[in-house]
Amino acid sequence: MALGEFDLIRKYFTRPTQQAVLGVGDDCALLQPAAGMQWAISSDMLVEGRHFLSTVRPERLGHKALAVNLSDLAACGARPVAFTLALALPRVDETFLAGLAQGLFELAGEHGIELVGGDTTAGPLNLCITVFGEVPPGQALRRDGARPGDALWVSHARHGGIGDARLALEVFRGHVSLAGDEFETVRRAMEQPQPRVALGLALRGVATAAIDVSDGLAGDLGHVLRRSGVGAVIEVEALPISRVLARQPRALQLDFALAGGDDYELLFTAPADADARVLAAGAAAGVGVRRIGRIGADAGLRLLDAQGAELPLVLGGFDHFRS
Amino acid sequence: MALGEFDLIRKYFTRPTQQAVLGVGDDCALLQPAAGMQWAISSDMLVEGRHFLSTVRPERLGHKALAVNLSDLAACGARPVAFTLALALPRVDETFLAGLAQGLFELAGEHGIELVGGDTTAGPLNLCITVFGEVPPGQALRRDGARPGDALWVSHARHGGIGDARLALEVFRGHVSLAGDEFETVRRAMEQPQPRVALGLALRGVATAAIDVSDGLAGDLGHVLRRSGVGAVIEVEALPISRVLARQPRALQLDFALAGGDDYELLFTAPADADARVLAAGAAAGVGVRRIGRIGADAGLRLLDAQGAELPLVLGGFDHFRS
Repeated sequence: MALGEFDLIRKYFTRPTQQAVLGVGDDCALLQPAAGMQWAISSDMLVEGRHFLSTVRPERLGHKALAVNLSDLAACGARPVAFTLALALPRVDETFLAGLAQGLFELAGEHGIELVGGDTTAGPLNLCITVFGEVPPGQALRRDGARPGDALWVSHARHGGIGDARLALEVFRGHVSLAGDEFETVRRAMEQPQPRVALGLALRGVATAAIDVSDGLAGDLGHVLRRSGVGAVIEVEALPISRVLARQPRALQLDFALAGGDDYELLFTAPADADARVLAAGAAAGVGVRRIGRIGADAGLRLLDAQGAELPLVLGGFDHFRS
Repeated sequence: MALGEFDLIRKYFTRPTQQAVLGVGDDCALLQPAAGMQWAISSDMLVEGRHFLSTVRPERLGHKALAVNLSDLAACGARPVAFTLALALPRVDETFLAGLAQGLFELAGEHGIELVGGDTTAGPLNLCITVFGEVPPGQALRRDGARPGDALWVSHARHGGIGDARLALEVFRGHVSLAGDEFETVRRAMEQPQPRVALGLALRGVATAAIDVSDGLAGDLGHVLRRSGVGAVIEVEALPISRVLARQPRALQLDFALAGGDDYELLFTAPADADARVLAAGAAAGVGVRRIGRIGADAGLRLLDAQGAELPLVLGGFDHFRS
């Protein structure tokens, strides 16, 4: 039996409200912002074939749709509060919806946030989530705060590295082959990224600038450099590369680590004398943090090898309208 | 020359921030909520072929995408503050984007609100807007406040009525023909609805419940009745019908007025002795308001003709997965 739009919303996406004054089911949700806090807002849209493959398990898709949005809050050092979900579905597939809701609400539960509203319609598969978080005035991590002399850092999973998601994508595309267990590891990085919310909170007052790595490390770093009016050097030997990616040719490792995309790690800067505080923030958040370079006054990005020799930079950030 | 995602955002969707602490171009936007206010949030997704036709002028599409969201704030009596836009585009068409941005920013300017963030990606055409408004605690208009004895009201354009948008759609579908000027009038109702924001604000403290009519008057009224635990009677002779729709057969007039959809008028209830205050609210907002029935204790919706005889109710609210 086909479910109508309102039945769908009730069945899969309506839960009792927690913090919201009014949740799903009215024209608007009503939230009471905490006194004096600023609100951080981000919106990301996921399209089949572009941000996820049709082969993805719906639980992982639900997780990822929320995770990429939480990653933006993490990059601002904001505490997540609530989110809306707008969903276009080509057909009503209850197995798909049940899985999607499961993955979504599991991650929401881990972060203590709630779905407060949204929209459901027929159309080519599309998920648009808008997240709301709070941050004390003046404490948000921004892209424009990097200063010459700052150290450049990137987060990584305990046993993972940057570039794994792209490695998995290239397996799907048939460009790389991996053993089954290796594939499962990097596929999880691609399909189930972990937003670095705890790290973002721990970096308030420590990091001088931050961004989440969604389009490729070098390209995303470019946004920080431009907005901060600075340049950077990356020591490529310091990049966190997983054991799985480390078995690939070195050129491919660097390409995926620097321009792979879909990593959802935090790339951030901190004063050069703040290493201990950054490491403590990583430890508190249970996330690896690696110092990969430094900020300089001269514009542009330079890559140095282990011997300090400059490597050619032929990488471009992943761009949804170019690649 | 093809524009990349970041160029697109810069060129068409980045304006200087007004109220926002931080606008487009960081991981999140930052907003400072006014002290003590509640936040009203709504998210609507528009899909080609479902919410708009490929023939729509991009200026009108930009207008409509924001208007349907502002209509939700209006139905809550919230003052609009800001919005995000996530956009999936099948190709980079600068004429389309320039028109879309024009329609969007014109309406945003009329309401004094700003675009604070969002997302752009390749994909089947899809627009997802999330709007934020503010309302003093306890003053939001909700769906659950209708009480037996209340009068039932609907807003309408000065020279328009409810059902015009559906009439235009049926012309596009080839089911109805209209003279050119008549078509232009109802086409504007369909493509360029005016969100009743000023009316929603004027109805704070007057209306007991409200909803915006997006899926058809009878269906949307059903949400109010269910959430309020009441029933209603509509006197069909009182429905505001435009001169254009009034030239169609009576059965079609009633069908489009009661179940047409896409009207974006406010349907609301108010105490039976509050007529003067409702009329004053309409006058202050420059919008017509028509008393079309009353709320009763018995569940369900009944339609009465001019003689007080009951009409059969064979209408269903427009449902994106059924129609």
